[in-house]
Amino acid sequence: MNRIIIDWGTTNFRAYTFQPDGSIGETRQVAAGILAIESRRFEDALEDAVGDWLAPGVEVLLSGMITSRNGWVETPYAETPVTLADLAKSAVSKVSRKGANLRFLPGVACRAPTPDVMRGEEIQVFGSVGPDETVTLILPGTHSKWVQVEKGRIVGFRTFFTGEMFSLLLKQSIIGRVASPSDETSDAAFVAGVGMALATSSISLLNDVFTVRAGMLLGQWPGQDVAGRLSGCLIGHEIRAGLGLGKPGASVILVGSAELCQRYQQALALFGVETRIPAGIATVEGFKRLARDTGR
Amino acid sequence: MNRIIIDWGTTNFRAYTFQPDGSIGETRQVAAGILAIESRRFEDALEDAVGDWLAPGVEVLLSGMITSRNGWVETPYAETPVTLADLAKSAVSKVSRKGANLRFLPGVACRAPTPDVMRGEEIQVFGSVGPDETVTLILPGTHSKWVQVEKGRIVGFRTFFTGEMFSLLLKQSIIGRVASPSDETSDAAFVAGVGMALATSSISLLNDVFTVRAGMLLGQWPGQDVAGRLSGCLIGHEIRAGLGLGKPGASVILVGSAELCQRYQQALALFGVETRIPAGIATVEGFKRLARDTGR
Repeated sequence: MNRIIIDWGTTNFRAYTFQPDGSIGETRQVAAGILAIESRRFEDALEDAVGDWLAPGVEVLLSGMITSRNGWVETPYAETPVTLADLAKSAVSKVSRKGANLRFLPGVACRAPTPDVMRGEEIQVFGSVGPDETVTLILPGTHSKWVQVEKGRIVGFRTFFTGEMFSLLLKQSIIGRVASPSDETSDAAFVAGVGMALATSSISLLNDVFTVRAGMLLGQWPGQDVAGRLSGCLIGHEIRAGLGLGKPGASVILVGSAELCQRYQQALALFGVETRIPAGIATVEGFKRLARDTGR
Repeated sequence: MNRIIIDWGTTNFRAYTFQPDGSIGETRQVAAGILAIESRRFEDALEDAVGDWLAPGVEVLLSGMITSRNGWVETPYAETPVTLADLAKSAVSKVSRKGANLRFLPGVACRAPTPDVMRGEEIQVFGSVGPDETVTLILPGTHSKWVQVEKGRIVGFRTFFTGEMFSLLLKQSIIGRVASPSDETSDAAFVAGVGMALATSSISLLNDVFTVRAGMLLGQWPGQDVAGRLSGCLIGHEIRAGLGLGKPGASVILVGSAELCQRYQQALALFGVETRIPAGIATVEGFKRLARDTGR
């Protein structure tokens, strides 16, 4: 083995070995995201997870929040418009205690019309589009990204606080207090929540999230529906705003966890937008392309 | 003394004695909001605060979250359109251990176009408008209310989750993590935050709140500005949506804490909306009017 890929985010650590033929060999995942690492002991965490893979001459490619200010090695952002080659050029190198060559890839910054940043999603984007493709991608998650790709370059993007907002409202706010504790986000409640954002009576997310609580207090829907409605309402507001930027010409590409992509696919269909979910693990596909394109 | 007013909310307990001439005598405030009361020991809390005022024949008027499901005595909601007399009619009575006559006033529910509820704000509304006035009131707070009054009746309202959202984002989210811990919400940062919501580049609150973080990471504003920007951005989004319901004909009435009313006044001015802040304590004024109108 001579090359390792690491997708090291806020919550998870995922590592993959590249086989000599370019395919993926072993995969390891641990809940050692950067928020779980105390006293900046990142190298200990790396060795705990994949120490047996590390040796002089081994190349380790890292992306995600591990390259942020709160991570191990902060890399400067590459500025839009960005190609895959730009990412490789801006990587920051470091030799590990075991002699492996670590290469920390940069995140991407966008300055206009509003400032925005990503770390980790950029490699997924390049793993999901063709070299000359023009398309909109949505990467649902804690901080959902809508990314514009033109002729294979990332030209702009917007981040929505949707996932973190859902978690805050359900777990920490007065809205979550009326949710049935055992509730799952049922399909019908989710669709009803998306419908709230689609309705002409919807004037603001700030009002709609309170409505989720008020409607339950007034007996218009049960406590079991609160989580599903809240999820649909937030995702619906994200989509309504994202589509306000201009309806995508081609079908939208969804990149992320299977469960979340399915939810977004369902919600986007209610807005009349066609979507496709590429096969493969986007981060791995991105690094494969990087290896092909840069010949290393 | 024969009459006491109690404004008992989520966070605070405020009590006032009525003088024989209709003016207010003594005032007591304690941090014994309903969330601070354990095991539903509401009557103990009442006696701790004003036990020396309670006696057979004393009338105690209560409003606020104390009349909610999580409070002491749940009162049904009065449904819009609602007059002050409707509130008095729907009050729920109970005799206290010390023989005082407790009267729990109802909250108000609105069913269309979206379900909404209030408890405690309704008496403040009636304390702030004339008997035949047609006007829009804004009651900023944890759950900010925009209330339409037509000919002295509450005909509809919308609640915005603005205050609780600000607290969640600043104290519990990744946005707060980049805020300078010592920060106050400076005037300039607040105005800049309102400007974010006013900008044509603003597409969604979900995007703008992330922008507050991203702009700081990219050096466009300092960490000391995060709290102020976030506050301005949220209040700006509330106002943008509230005004979307139709620009108020007359000046808008602001009811709430002096500090918060001043912030809203400043933000509304940026939207070109004139406001006025009535003198007096709105809850007390409401109960005074109730006493005059109902002759008791």
